[in-house]
Amino acid sequence: MNTTRPLRLAMVGGGPGAFIGAVHRTAALMDGHYVLVAGALSSDPAKCAEGAAGWGIDPSRAYGSWQMMLQEEASLPADERAEVVSIVTPNHLHHEVAIAALDAGFHVACDKPLTTSSERAAEVAAAVERAAAKGVRFLLTHNYTGSPRVREARELVAKGEAGPIGTVRKVYVEYLQGWLATDLEASGQKQAAWRTNPELNGPGGSLGDIGTHAHNLAEFITGMPITAVQGTRRAFVKGRPVDDDAMALITFENGADGTLCCSQVCVGRENGLAIRVFGTKGGLEWHQEHPNDLTIYSADGGAVTKRTGNGYLSPLAQSSGRVPPGHPEGYLEAFANLYTDLATSIRSGEPLPAHLPSIEAGLRGVRFIEDVIASSEG
Amino acid sequence: MNTTRPLRLAMVGGGPGAFIGAVHRTAALMDGHYVLVAGALSSDPAKCAEGAAGWGIDPSRAYGSWQMMLQEEASLPADERAEVVSIVTPNHLHHEVAIAALDAGFHVACDKPLTTSSERAAEVAAAVERAAAKGVRFLLTHNYTGSPRVREARELVAKGEAGPIGTVRKVYVEYLQGWLATDLEASGQKQAAWRTNPELNGPGGSLGDIGTHAHNLAEFITGMPITAVQGTRRAFVKGRPVDDDAMALITFENGADGTLCCSQVCVGRENGLAIRVFGTKGGLEWHQEHPNDLTIYSADGGAVTKRTGNGYLSPLAQSSGRVPPGHPEGYLEAFANLYTDLATSIRSGEPLPAHLPSIEAGLRGVRFIEDVIASSEG
Amino acid sequence: MNTTRPLRLAMVGGGPGAFIGAVHRTAALMDGHYVLVAGALSSDPAKCAEGAAGWGIDPSRAYGSWQMMLQEEASLPADERAEVVSIVTPNHLHHEVAIAALDAGFHVACDKPLTTSSERAAEVAAAVERAAAKGVRFLLTHNYTGSPRVREARELVAKGEAGPIGTVRKVYVEYLQGWLATDLEASGQKQAAWRTNPELNGPGGSLGDIGTHAHNLAEFITGMPITAVQGTRRAFVKGRPVDDDAMALITFENGADGTLCCSQVCVGRENGLAIRVFGTKGGLEWHQEHPNDLTIYSADGGAVTKRTGNGYLSPLAQSSGRVPPGHPEGYLEAFANLYTDLATSIRSGEPLPAHLPSIEAGLRGVRFIEDVIASSEG
Amino acid sequence: MNTTRPLRLAMVGGGPGAFIGAVHRTAALMDGHYVLVAGALSSDPAKCAEGAAGWGIDPSRAYGSWQMMLQEEASLPADERAEVVSIVTPNHLHHEVAIAALDAGFHVACDKPLTTSSERAAEVAAAVERAAAKGVRFLLTHNYTGSPRVREARELVAKGEAGPIGTVRKVYVEYLQGWLATDLEASGQKQAAWRTNPELNGPGGSLGDIGTHAHNLAEFITGMPITAVQGTRRAFVKGRPVDDDAMALITFENGADGTLCCSQVCVGRENGLAIRVFGTKGGLEWHQEHPNDLTIYSADGGAVTKRTGNGYLSPLAQSSGRVPPGHPEGYLEAFANLYTDLATSIRSGEPLPAHLPSIEAGLRGVRFIEDVIASSEG
Repeated sequence: MNTTRPLRLAMVGGGPGAFIGAVHRTAALMDGHYVLVAGALSSDPAKCAEGAAGWGIDPSRAYGSWQMMLQEEASLPADERAEVVSIVTPNHLHHEVAIAALDAGFHVACDKPLTTSSERAAEVAAAVERAAAKGVRFLLTHNYTGSPRVREARELVAKGEAGPIGTVRKVYVEYLQGWLATDLEASGQKQAAWRTNPELNGPGGSLGDIGTHAHNLAEFITGMPITAVQGTRRAFVKGRPVDDDAMALITFENGADGTLCCSQVCVGRENGLAIRVFGTKGGLEWHQEHPNDLTIYSADGGAVTKRTGNGYLSPLAQSSGRVPPGHPEGYLEAFANLYTDLATSIRSGEPLPAHLPSIEAGLRGVRFIEDVIASSEG
Repeated sequence: MNTTRPLRLAMVGGGPGAFIGAVHRTAALMDGHYVLVAGALSSDPAKCAEGAAGWGIDPSRAYGSWQMMLQEEASLPADERAEVVSIVTPNHLHHEVAIAALDAGFHVACDKPLTTSSERAAEVAAAVERAAAKGVRFLLTHNYTGSPRVREARELVAKGEAGPIGTVRKVYVEYLQGWLATDLEASGQKQAAWRTNPELNGPGGSLGDIGTHAHNLAEFITGMPITAVQGTRRAFVKGRPVDDDAMALITFENGADGTLCCSQVCVGRENGLAIRVFGTKGGLEWHQEHPNDLTIYSADGGAVTKRTGNGYLSPLAQSSGRVPPGHPEGYLEAFANLYTDLATSIRSGEPLPAHLPSIEAGLRGVRFIEDVIASSEG
Repeated sequence: MNTTRPLRLAMVGGGPGAFIGAVHRTAALMDGHYVLVAGALSSDPAKCAEGAAGWGIDPSRAYGSWQMMLQEEASLPADERAEVVSIVTPNHLHHEVAIAALDAGFHVACDKPLTTSSERAAEVAAAVERAAAKGVRFLLTHNYTGSPRVREARELVAKGEAGPIGTVRKVYVEYLQGWLATDLEASGQKQAAWRTNPELNGPGGSLGDIGTHAHNLAEFITGMPITAVQGTRRAFVKGRPVDDDAMALITFENGADGTLCCSQVCVGRENGLAIRVFGTKGGLEWHQEHPNDLTIYSADGGAVTKRTGNGYLSPLAQSSGRVPPGHPEGYLEAFANLYTDLATSIRSGEPLPAHLPSIEAGLRGVRFIEDVIASSEG
Repeated sequence: MNTTRPLRLAMVGGGPGAFIGAVHRTAALMDGHYVLVAGALSSDPAKCAEGAAGWGIDPSRAYGSWQMMLQEEASLPADERAEVVSIVTPNHLHHEVAIAALDAGFHVACDKPLTTSSERAAEVAAAVERAAAKGVRFLLTHNYTGSPRVREARELVAKGEAGPIGTVRKVYVEYLQGWLATDLEASGQKQAAWRTNPELNGPGGSLGDIGTHAHNLAEFITGMPITAVQGTRRAFVKGRPVDDDAMALITFENGADGTLCCSQVCVGRENGLAIRVFGTKGGLEWHQEHPNDLTIYSADGGAVTKRTGNGYLSPLAQSSGRVPPGHPEGYLEAFANLYTDLATSIRSGEPLPAHLPSIEAGLRGVRFIEDVIASSEG
């Protein structure tokens, strides 16, 4: 096998006007590990064709439905058919598409949250397990875990008392946006429309869209599950049927605790995912909007900023960047790291590395949404 | 009356090695509105004399006890005796000294928290009320409210829907330090010793020391009381009899909500008081460690940094600074603004302006500590 | 013609261990506008084959020399042969390869500086002119001009007195690195080796590598030529035959002036390209290491930070980003914008837009190096 | 002698509406080392009286001229008369007042620049020498050297190859303001009026006001004289008879070089004094507008931020702050450090410490102005 041949990618969702589909495509293409060969980009045939043309997908592989796509692609010769399916639809479709794609033998890269309920999540998990037995992989694209600094943070915490952070005591994580501070969905804006529709999005609005990222980031960096949440959620915009804001006191497996806040009504905040972790020996801080800096605190050394491409970083962080020190990477590069690692895993036959978000992260994310909702109502 | 004659100040507490006494002195002296003429700086006579000498207090007015100081000063001629008494003792003494000083006709500048229980706080409040009838003033030194940017923030929020913030929806306030991440009190460090001793400090450790500042700052800027807290407190350092960390979900009178976190175990964090307020129209952000910047967010204008001494600031913010744009002020200048405003009020005969923290802030701060404790135990 | 079919790209240089070749490849692939089909990646056949395999280039199109590549590719059918040639070799080869590629009818994307002398630059310019007559394009990859914020800065300055900057008076531009603070070339590090070798690099060390970027950035944003330089260059590391540091007082066509500094001995600085422009009405500031922020100064409005993806940006800046507000882009995305705009120009038949760096920028950059050298020796 | 008795201070200049006089007063009062007892605040008797009343100076010691003040104060009993004279007039008066005050036996704290020409500076220097023989001290208030971080920077550089910076190679220093970007003096604004009047200010406008600060800061931190300047100055505002902008390539005694820029036409910049120093081992960076942070660069450790009050600082930096870590100090505290150190020197009988700016700094500053002017005209 030519280990560097690009993998053939098919996409479900991502038609014209969608946001996250274009991101997945760029992330997959960036490092040359994938070619986009097929798509069921929209349930609207005209949009599907338009999108496919715009992305250079052969019209013969621009399918009118994902069911058709899976069936037709599976019937192509092994050296032609799509190998990986990216699922970038609204949340309510993740479940069905993922199960079908996995059962049909396609590797799956699925956007988060995994799905809209724990019951459905468990069904996907069963499919992932069946697929794993056949060497088929499942990746949940919690993309911020692909940031070299986030990975460095995880590595530093993993050293425990031997590392600069020590044993984790406090975690403050937040994801603040402002784009839903008004009734944007009334304007027909596509993103706002489906994300505030519980049928398409699931019951957690801000919780599902961004709260799960904050939850995942905290668990990813600390390497520990959040075992309890005491929180509340609400909709500040009148009549909105899903939450646009939530917050919780959280407790981790080792007794560490902290806060988790997500909001889409913080006017003027753009994409404010940020985390601070403090342990017995030191602390760390990372802000997604300035992702190239990782600040490390210690008791007596001042605050140190660790940056891209330097030799003092962990091997994982070093291998997660493409450029020398001082050359900033961002959102897309972090996202691409997940796709690259998936490609490496597929080619090598090795299982997904521990630092890639998997079905377990998906199950935990859906459970988190439900836990905050229950706590809020309790 | 010469309106610009410096007021005569006496201090209770603040002996050698103390922190906050020296701060009060510098704050009082900075603008020339006070001269320090008397002190009961320590219960240890040697320390009292040493401190008085170091600060140029005449030995005859370096008293061995605050009781003696109040009695002797009151017996001096009107144009000699102290006019204002600063109380900078550990918390458990605030109550007794403040009541005695007020009842003896001295204006009082008392450090926070007001005292160690709501019962005691009510007794001080009664004394404040008695004193007010005689034109005697009481100031609680929630010093961060003296920052020109904090005052600007309050003015901006006060404009409501006519201003850049609109109606407040979310408040995130925090005060993170790291100095008590280890058992510092075991080393005999004076600050750590009394602040972790519930007899001297009251029941709220981090809550009393810094949590009350965060609470006050949130109420000051929003102009609204926090009406509910759902929180938890704990001691991370084993055997410490008071909390060194607390956090709470908070709700404001108008239904706005948010989080309040205070901690003294965030290793490497120095004096991290910070607040973010988001309303229907915009948001604001302020960090005490970089106090000269106030960031204003809006939906469509980018983030604007407002700074010292510029003509675009409110009259209150402009009059709260001493220097032209770009000349940074800090902790001491903010503190001095409280003393200066107190002097202005005393000289003019006008009551304390609404932006000065008063007995009401003191009562609310003590109640806040008790509420978090109750919530944590509940 | 399918306007969205990816263009076929061939690369000269960029073998294993090279830096800028990989960057060009990623930049070209990122948006799906190119496929890499051929390469003369190294003069070492083993390295050439290794590199080609690593990048998925068919072995039949991994050529042992660029001459052979141009010849063979030109002989392929029109719908197979490479359409664009990227030149990512050490500087001394740019001249010869560019002329040959252009004359053979390939569009060229050439790394900067254009070449090693004004004489050679003029020869390339002649080839560019010949090629232009046949619709063949030449792009010089001054990649930082691709940053959405840099483009926004240019648009703002271009508004002149009607815009927020007014007429330009002062420009401070710098590019500070630290990687050559020691005799790194002695270690055999590939980048250091050729960049400090005047045979391969040309006479300007830091001047050619980074000084030309600073020069180009200043001219790009102001829209004006630098008409005079009074400067000095030197090598701080003993025995280094090219400069590792230079600085100059610079004057612009309209009489504005300022400083231009470049250095590779500023220990600890990574890739510190930064520019500040002040005019009669306001100013702007941009730092490459935090490329998503553009700060705008005005006389009475505070400092405003403009960021990615917002509606207040110019159309050019908006169309130069891929993501919504708060999703950081970086070095590679800026680079990719040049390749994307080149692809758009090729497909549309329109000439290169004015915001793309062309042969003119190349001529000016080489002249700048020579001018500083002359001034330094004068 | 009571070593802690406040010193009696008299001020020349600083009447109502002046800026720097009020700063000197606050700086002197802040730490309780001085009382302001006398003043010749203005040549306008009404203003003089008004200013004296506002500052609590006894009307009998509010003098109508500085000559009268020196004469009268000198005739008072030794335990009443002023001991220190602060000179805060426009520059053209420094020379005459300083010589008279020194010769009359008063310690002098003189604002910068020392005076308006090297000839006059030499005359002051002679007076300083005469005075020194009698134990009378002269301080030039280059206030930024009082910043704890600036002092720390000096200490770090002084360690040479044993310290984190190593041997200095590059210095970039700048002082950018925007307040004179328009013809402000035409409005009658007092500061603008005298600073743009060569009769009152001397020949260097921006050079004298802020260029000398930049020059002094560079020499203070590096511990080396600047031995050559190659520069230019100009007035951007039409008809302004002094420069409002200057810049120079500078060379230090050890061969290090760099740039020095000062400008008062950088619209929106407030008080942007900043310096970066790079040596063989590392670098440092300090910005006056965020004075509590000192960034240290190293080849392999990331950028470290050093801050107030921490144990890792040098003894000089630690003793130059009043507050614990995280409590910001600013412009006034730095200024106060000079007055405090002067008081300590006077009381102890020890000479001024090497870190206090003295007549030597004054001579060098005046020479610097002349050198840039000569270079600009040459």
